[in-house]
Amino acid sequence: MEIGIIGATGYSGVELYRLLCGHPEKPAVTLFSSSKEGQYITDEYPQLTEITNKGMLHKLSADHIKKMDIVFSCAPSGVSTEILPPLLDAGIRVIDLAGDYRLKDSVLYEKWYKKPAPPERWLHEAVYGLSEWNKEKIQSAQLIANPGCYPTAVSLALLPLLKHNLIDPLTIIADAKSGLSGAGASLAKSAHYAQANENTVIYKMNQHQHIPEMEKNFASIGKTDVTMTFSTHLVPMTRGIMATIYSELEPGKSPQNVLRALQECYEKEHFVRVHPENTMLGTKQVYGSNYCDISFSFDERTGRLTLYSVIDNLLKGAAGQALHNMNIMMDLDETAGLQLIPQFP
Amino acid sequence: MEIGIIGATGYSGVELYRLLCGHPEKPAVTLFSSSKEGQYITDEYPQLTEITNKGMLHKLSADHIKKMDIVFSCAPSGVSTEILPPLLDAGIRVIDLAGDYRLKDSVLYEKWYKKPAPPERWLHEAVYGLSEWNKEKIQSAQLIANPGCYPTAVSLALLPLLKHNLIDPLTIIADAKSGLSGAGASLAKSAHYAQANENTVIYKMNQHQHIPEMEKNFASIGKTDVTMTFSTHLVPMTRGIMATIYSELEPGKSPQNVLRALQECYEKEHFVRVHPENTMLGTKQVYGSNYCDISFSFDERTGRLTLYSVIDNLLKGAAGQALHNMNIMMDLDETAGLQLIPQFP
Amino acid sequence: MEIGIIGATGYSGVELYRLLCGHPEKPAVTLFSSSKEGQYITDEYPQLTEITNKGMLHKLSADHIKKMDIVFSCAPSGVSTEILPPLLDAGIRVIDLAGDYRLKDSVLYEKWYKKPAPPERWLHEAVYGLSEWNKEKIQSAQLIANPGCYPTAVSLALLPLLKHNLIDPLTIIADAKSGLSGAGASLAKSAHYAQANENTVIYKMNQHQHIPEMEKNFASIGKTDVTMTFSTHLVPMTRGIMATIYSELEPGKSPQNVLRALQECYEKEHFVRVHPENTMLGTKQVYGSNYCDISFSFDERTGRLTLYSVIDNLLKGAAGQALHNMNIMMDLDETAGLQLIPQFP
Amino acid sequence: MEIGIIGATGYSGVELYRLLCGHPEKPAVTLFSSSKEGQYITDEYPQLTEITNKGMLHKLSADHIKKMDIVFSCAPSGVSTEILPPLLDAGIRVIDLAGDYRLKDSVLYEKWYKKPAPPERWLHEAVYGLSEWNKEKIQSAQLIANPGCYPTAVSLALLPLLKHNLIDPLTIIADAKSGLSGAGASLAKSAHYAQANENTVIYKMNQHQHIPEMEKNFASIGKTDVTMTFSTHLVPMTRGIMATIYSELEPGKSPQNVLRALQECYEKEHFVRVHPENTMLGTKQVYGSNYCDISFSFDERTGRLTLYSVIDNLLKGAAGQALHNMNIMMDLDETAGLQLIPQFP
Repeated sequence: MEIGIIGATGYSGVELYRLLCGHPEKPAVTLFSSSKEGQYITDEYPQLTEITNKGMLHKLSADHIKKMDIVFSCAPSGVSTEILPPLLDAGIRVIDLAGDYRLKDSVLYEKWYKKPAPPERWLHEAVYGLSEWNKEKIQSAQLIANPGCYPTAVSLALLPLLKHNLIDPLTIIADAKSGLSGAGASLAKSAHYAQANENTVIYKMNQHQHIPEMEKNFASIGKTDVTMTFSTHLVPMTRGIMATIYSELEPGKSPQNVLRALQECYEKEHFVRVHPENTMLGTKQVYGSNYCDISFSFDERTGRLTLYSVIDNLLKGAAGQALHNMNIMMDLDETAGLQLIPQFP
Repeated sequence: MEIGIIGATGYSGVELYRLLCGHPEKPAVTLFSSSKEGQYITDEYPQLTEITNKGMLHKLSADHIKKMDIVFSCAPSGVSTEILPPLLDAGIRVIDLAGDYRLKDSVLYEKWYKKPAPPERWLHEAVYGLSEWNKEKIQSAQLIANPGCYPTAVSLALLPLLKHNLIDPLTIIADAKSGLSGAGASLAKSAHYAQANENTVIYKMNQHQHIPEMEKNFASIGKTDVTMTFSTHLVPMTRGIMATIYSELEPGKSPQNVLRALQECYEKEHFVRVHPENTMLGTKQVYGSNYCDISFSFDERTGRLTLYSVIDNLLKGAAGQALHNMNIMMDLDETAGLQLIPQFP
Repeated sequence: MEIGIIGATGYSGVELYRLLCGHPEKPAVTLFSSSKEGQYITDEYPQLTEITNKGMLHKLSADHIKKMDIVFSCAPSGVSTEILPPLLDAGIRVIDLAGDYRLKDSVLYEKWYKKPAPPERWLHEAVYGLSEWNKEKIQSAQLIANPGCYPTAVSLALLPLLKHNLIDPLTIIADAKSGLSGAGASLAKSAHYAQANENTVIYKMNQHQHIPEMEKNFASIGKTDVTMTFSTHLVPMTRGIMATIYSELEPGKSPQNVLRALQECYEKEHFVRVHPENTMLGTKQVYGSNYCDISFSFDERTGRLTLYSVIDNLLKGAAGQALHNMNIMMDLDETAGLQLIPQFP
Repeated sequence: MEIGIIGATGYSGVELYRLLCGHPEKPAVTLFSSSKEGQYITDEYPQLTEITNKGMLHKLSADHIKKMDIVFSCAPSGVSTEILPPLLDAGIRVIDLAGDYRLKDSVLYEKWYKKPAPPERWLHEAVYGLSEWNKEKIQSAQLIANPGCYPTAVSLALLPLLKHNLIDPLTIIADAKSGLSGAGASLAKSAHYAQANENTVIYKMNQHQHIPEMEKNFASIGKTDVTMTFSTHLVPMTRGIMATIYSELEPGKSPQNVLRALQECYEKEHFVRVHPENTMLGTKQVYGSNYCDISFSFDERTGRLTLYSVIDNLLKGAAGQALHNMNIMMDLDETAGLQLIPQFP
């Protein structure tokens, strides 16, 4: 197996590389980086010393294109739009971790991302890689738009309930908290340790580009009229997302229906763990793993349901889900390279 | 001025003592602690070395009761119910930082706190010490029920809007994030560093005893039918609360109305700072100060308003507000001892 | 393969269990806990949900003793002294992660640990499990005294230099910094989040029980006259130890000698990575792995050599090294179950 | 009183401004920033909202120069060399927080700082502002070279012992641990939250520019032959330095001599607190204050003395000490504006 990683020096790139090093198929991995061409990955990430001494290439040659089974693109949004179409046109299979191909609608993309959209053809061809919900299409896809970290945590919790008409789609409010690695390795004032430590910060109020991605997910199971409220906070930790999601139960529906819907939906899924009503969750219980843990509470006083969903944003929210998708595409055991037990403490 | 602090070795007790050391009236402060009687406060808190070498007494003597101008009780919920009535009966003025006297209704108290309620007389006499909203009554009160940390952050943001009928009181959902000091100095698995670090945790789902306190606050301005949804999270930091509060604007109301209501309400208040719409807030901008900072966003897509409110839970959420109340009770400059500029970084 | 873990609910116990779950031999693991008998491991550690649902037993039955290939004891110091001798007398092979059997000298043990020493027979039989330095004896040992976290980091750096007479053994000073997990899961004021966060603390000054363990290690290669100075600090992180070690180069010796000694010593060792002179190290580059990374600087101005050594205290400093020792004892690939690439960020 | 702050948007600049806002002399403060000219300080530091709305000026006019009583320069090393001489030539009194004027020797400066040295005249005129050790000269100085954060912590602990010939000056090794704010507000990979969190890192091995500053301090009391070893680590916290300092007691000297020397030296000093032998120290006990806390241990086994010294790097290690020096220069109460009780937790 021949694998390429474009944008190998970002956090999801290096996490993906770590996972591939432990993959039972022992793929040959080639690293690409436009900014660090010629450098060794260990220059940037000394934790890889003696594990690899790979140098990084600037871009894929025709030869690479011919032999690569899969290329992961960990380049940022905007860059994927530019660099992937030629590779795709040449027939290569790509899993893109950026947001560029997640929305089918170029107008919507340009509105929320404030960048030119990718070519319509590839927008249209792209398969949304929410692994548990789209397996059949993922299997045969040429281009996977790997989901965003927040949409993964939120959609995995909400989709089963929407599908079974248990909650009122017009009442959805999701309040998400993320560690700093979610914002990537690039330097920014908000990511300076002295700014971020001992600080919980609200950002991108009502403007987060993951909003249309989630609404599109709801539309994909027929809930086309959802306009959700979504807030994002940075909390002082490196990894982890907790989404706390509020909605109203439909008349006649009970917490038992909720639990059953979640359990039925995920009983055959390895990476989603459904907990009983009123189970306290913390992000650390999925830290370093590809799990999404879900629980919920129903408040009789208010008639509102609250869902809790936790993931490791770099794994289930990025590199882990990408590898899961690769396993599906290559017809491998879904858990290959992903049997990661959460690290605690 | 003679001041006593009961429960001086808890986090709000020692924070109050720090504030009183810097108070311009230079009050004489006596410390009481049932568990650390006879020890010096510096044994527990070496940061106070050379600033004081006070020993701690077990309880107030008749002589103390006679001469004390104010006693702060930083004892935990339940203990206040037991120890304060005799002091109050003897005529002493008390500011209680626990929850015991915050709800006027003993049935409600026992339901949420799962402890016997204090005597009806003192429940009835107690004045709720939300400083900006209750000044007149605070001034002449014998017993102040100092507000909880979460209710302070949430109520200060919501009350102006409810008062001006800008939001639908039936749609309120508050999602709060707190640092670990909010849970106090007592040892618990959830407060162990290795558990709490790199972890965001949901707790007391729909069961937090601050819920009836907030609903009572809304009722106090005529919104008697509110059943709010309230979630609390621990995030890995020591101090700080961020409350993210969702509601729906009433028909015909605009973000301009919201800003104006907040500004008018607090324009003469030193400790509440209102920011323009869409201002990003972080808990660190009030860290080490008695400020509550408030901003908001209105989302035209959804018609929902989101309020953001940040405080330092040990100051505006506990000791700072208690001292503010003391200043009001003693007819001092409200900001005496509280002119704390947030420490950053 | 049948494995037992005594003290399974401590941090090194649960880390060991996590490693054994990923071990290619797929051992059957039985968990023992005196305090949590009858509970499920997932009650304490929800991260293990759906991975296991094992209940914990109080102690080993005769039947367990018969069939267990290896028992790991993660009980605290003092407890090992009590509970292991009967198991050992019954012939079982034990890897003890506590300090009880590390010092051969019962007088020394009682002086530093302030507890009664284990029976002389087992003190004498115990093989010190510093994997890279004691492989032959480990292979055939019945009882392994698994090294302490600090002695692992310090000894791996110093032993090659002492062995080659490159440094003056009378000049050794080691300054160590550890994350909070090193102190274990038990509740203590010093481990409360609000105490430990934003705090670097010195503790056990000149009294740390790991001092005689390190001096014994130096004596084991003939440096019997070493009295080292050793300081330990808690820094606000969960995992990781950095040891900064000062000594004077022997006359005529150079940094090149130092590098060569380190490289030769560890060139065939998988888990010790030697970096060139003046390489900056951080604990995070070994986080979540069984590596010990070593580098050094020589200062011509002062003639002093400084060694830097970093480990993950729960892996190379505890459970990882214990499993490495098990692999050696069972004649397995040394890296089985330990091919962990450091997790970053 | 008229005060200027050059480089007001750095961490020590804004901390100084915070202190000056609380100074009893109520000085008029003008802010200067070459990079943020025309912006408001609250744009960068929203915690100052409603406390000030000052805009920042690019540089001092002739008028400023005439009326300013003191100018603090918080510009980085190198910039002070360029911008201060014209101001000094015009007769203004300056407290410089950078390293440029701390070494009297331009050759030494250029060697360690790798930048051109300031004019000899001002190098020569500059008075080193280690407040407790240089009061008389500080009082009448035109230019204060405010000490570095590490040299403050280390020198305050060592100078009394060197002065009384209690320790062998040839045996000094200082191992320092600092929070991230010490590296300033500028963006750097090492200060990215995801890099710095859960990481203890060694840096600038044997190359730190504070080494000659400390050796010069020792020389200033006659210990001219000291070449010390000095290591610096970043630990994951925002504020705080702990220096752990090793040396050998001179023959015939005892821990009692050490305690007495420290106590005598600092008994009249408000900001240095000497603790008894074997007192555990943590950086948090001085957090948010201008204190330097010192304790020590003597190890009979090794004959070595270990000193512990903790400061808040932004206060005693920068802005606090600068203000202390201003108070001395202006003949004010030394503690004016600095009566800060450490904030805990």
